[in-house]
Amino acid sequence: MISKRAVRMPASAIRRLVPYADAAKKDGVKVYHLNIGQPDIKSPHCAIEAVRNFDLDHVSYSHSAGLIELRKGLVEKYYSRIGIDIEVQDLIITVAGSESVNLALAIACDEGDEIIVLEPFYTNYNTFAFMNGITLKSISTDIRDGFQVPSMDEFEKAITDRTKAILVCNPGNPTGTLYSKESMLALGDIARRHGLFLISDEVYREFCYTDEPHFSAMNIPDLEDNVILIDSVSKRYNLCGARVGCIVSKNKEVMNAAMKYAQSRLCPPVIGQIAAIGALDTPDEYFKAVREEYIKRRDYMIDGLNSIEGVYTPVPMGAFYTIAELPVDDTESFAKWLLENFRLDNETVMITPAASFYGTPGKGLNQARIAYVLEIDQMKKALKILEEGLKAYPGRTI
Amino acid sequence: MISKRAVRMPASAIRRLVPYADAAKKDGVKVYHLNIGQPDIKSPHCAIEAVRNFDLDHVSYSHSAGLIELRKGLVEKYYSRIGIDIEVQDLIITVAGSESVNLALAIACDEGDEIIVLEPFYTNYNTFAFMNGITLKSISTDIRDGFQVPSMDEFEKAITDRTKAILVCNPGNPTGTLYSKESMLALGDIARRHGLFLISDEVYREFCYTDEPHFSAMNIPDLEDNVILIDSVSKRYNLCGARVGCIVSKNKEVMNAAMKYAQSRLCPPVIGQIAAIGALDTPDEYFKAVREEYIKRRDYMIDGLNSIEGVYTPVPMGAFYTIAELPVDDTESFAKWLLENFRLDNETVMITPAASFYGTPGKGLNQARIAYVLEIDQMKKALKILEEGLKAYPGRTI
Repeated sequence: MISKRAVRMPASAIRRLVPYADAAKKDGVKVYHLNIGQPDIKSPHCAIEAVRNFDLDHVSYSHSAGLIELRKGLVEKYYSRIGIDIEVQDLIITVAGSESVNLALAIACDEGDEIIVLEPFYTNYNTFAFMNGITLKSISTDIRDGFQVPSMDEFEKAITDRTKAILVCNPGNPTGTLYSKESMLALGDIARRHGLFLISDEVYREFCYTDEPHFSAMNIPDLEDNVILIDSVSKRYNLCGARVGCIVSKNKEVMNAAMKYAQSRLCPPVIGQIAAIGALDTPDEYFKAVREEYIKRRDYMIDGLNSIEGVYTPVPMGAFYTIAELPVDDTESFAKWLLENFRLDNETVMITPAASFYGTPGKGLNQARIAYVLEIDQMKKALKILEEGLKAYPGRTI
Repeated sequence: MISKRAVRMPASAIRRLVPYADAAKKDGVKVYHLNIGQPDIKSPHCAIEAVRNFDLDHVSYSHSAGLIELRKGLVEKYYSRIGIDIEVQDLIITVAGSESVNLALAIACDEGDEIIVLEPFYTNYNTFAFMNGITLKSISTDIRDGFQVPSMDEFEKAITDRTKAILVCNPGNPTGTLYSKESMLALGDIARRHGLFLISDEVYREFCYTDEPHFSAMNIPDLEDNVILIDSVSKRYNLCGARVGCIVSKNKEVMNAAMKYAQSRLCPPVIGQIAAIGALDTPDEYFKAVREEYIKRRDYMIDGLNSIEGVYTPVPMGAFYTIAELPVDDTESFAKWLLENFRLDNETVMITPAASFYGTPGKGLNQARIAYVLEIDQMKKALKILEEGLKAYPGRTI
């Protein structure tokens, strides 16, 4: 008999609909995936070439903190360029952002401790919190306000003796919301006054669509000991599958602890690290082009969604997702119905019900997360299907 | 302030000596590494070519269970060839053997549960047990008996209400001991009678130096629901840094739970998986040549060690380690002394003190783990340094 915790371990709500999509595809139906953040954008040439030029005759373990060329390169070529001033010892390469979140949680909290998150939030925060015996305490944000950081009073009310950290994702998955410098400073202020860690997940940092630069938690003054940065190298260069990220902190206790965890799994993926070293030479034009492409896609998607009757979505300023309100009772039933019952020219669309991004039961039932990672002609068809599907859906609320 | 668990998290005992080695190297001293399992053996050409022929323009996430080509390939090309009869759904690709062990522990045990291990055992079992709140209960094995599985009475005595699993490593790290079919059947019998999981770490399966084939726990009759296999693809082909392994079980509850954990970290490293797919075409001659090379190295190392006065080591039949008794009180002090104080022609040697492989305090103090992963001319020099070092060591006991 397996352990109780393995039984209780939450299954991925996002993937619950996959069998329905697979069944539709088996029937020859084309499914447009608005549900996943698997972009089709090319990786920088230099990253791909680094893999193709692989010239080792075997693949040894790297240092548990990652290849020194990558660590130094990140500090000197990447972080310094974007104005984050760190030393090599402030950084450990992780098995992507996922391991980095898991480490930050284990290091910040003991079992029974609490972390404050803004809902809607990335569902796997929940999974990693469960694995570490941590309670996520969610503060609601409002779709009409673009899911911005609410008043600090909400945080003051939510903090208890067991609160050890505030966890933010900026820009946000699933909302695409970008937090202003003022919001980050206010969060920093709360963290400082209550002695909390501020765990800042900035894996979508290069996907910001405003003219102002992204303001990192690492640059909040006088908060060096409190900030733990979650970052992803592989996501930044569309090498998602390479599984290379990092955890960054100026708090030596945090980094010493992270090193112990890092040693237990020996090392992060080396061939992915080689791709990441190649990616360090990515020219600025690459990010500029990617950003322009996403702005085009976002504009198309947001306009398209908001022109469907009964649909509302704010304009996200980062990442490649948005949360949309749909005129249905329950987006999970609707998403399932689309995959099982609705076809337009033998095509359908897959969306992610948003309820699983909320900690508060019953919230987000009429919301869905929509990724704009497809090319515009694909999104055009997907939006048409969504519009017609909403018209035909028996559970329509308007 | 970081969590109590992060403070208590055990640091890698194996790596505690690294700063001393680094200091010696800084002084221009050559250090022969008998301490680490980082072999210099070439990977199969087909694995390296698969990486060089990488032809994607970006790297998407794979399925959380791994690329289907790799899963199918492992079942059809690897496991079927070595007589392990499994289906694709019995296998999930993991971030190397490390993740596989961690998953098996979390799935088999709740906090406070116990797992029986044979000491000396791989130190990171301890780390993963700590991370999962599990107690390792160790049963001693005897160096004079080649660390073979002791009488089943020892297991009967060790089993309590909280015991959920027996964890074995076969062939063993750090001992190099290969368990016979009879031993495995006996362990299977105990597991079956007490309803325990038998977690079998077989990452060194292809490194066996007897004529009989390795007997996998997967082939113990009537034990399908109890066996969880830990395997490493990257270790098998000397792609250690690629970080690709798998967890295998015919127990559907185990695999369903493993899938939930796998989804939380999205996917295993994709470029490493591509190397692993290439490695599936490795010809038998590769394994044969590697085996012959290791037998040569082992024979040289074991003869060399046993001809040093006061040193005793059994003949390991697998992996690339052996545990040797040295004529010193405490191999940790001796290892440190070698790195700090002993030079022969400006060279020294690094060994791993074995105490950290024991669960029982005070055990293994006069033992060291020696890896035979160097070429013979290198080992020759390393053995000479060890011999002269033992003669000169002030803490010598004979």
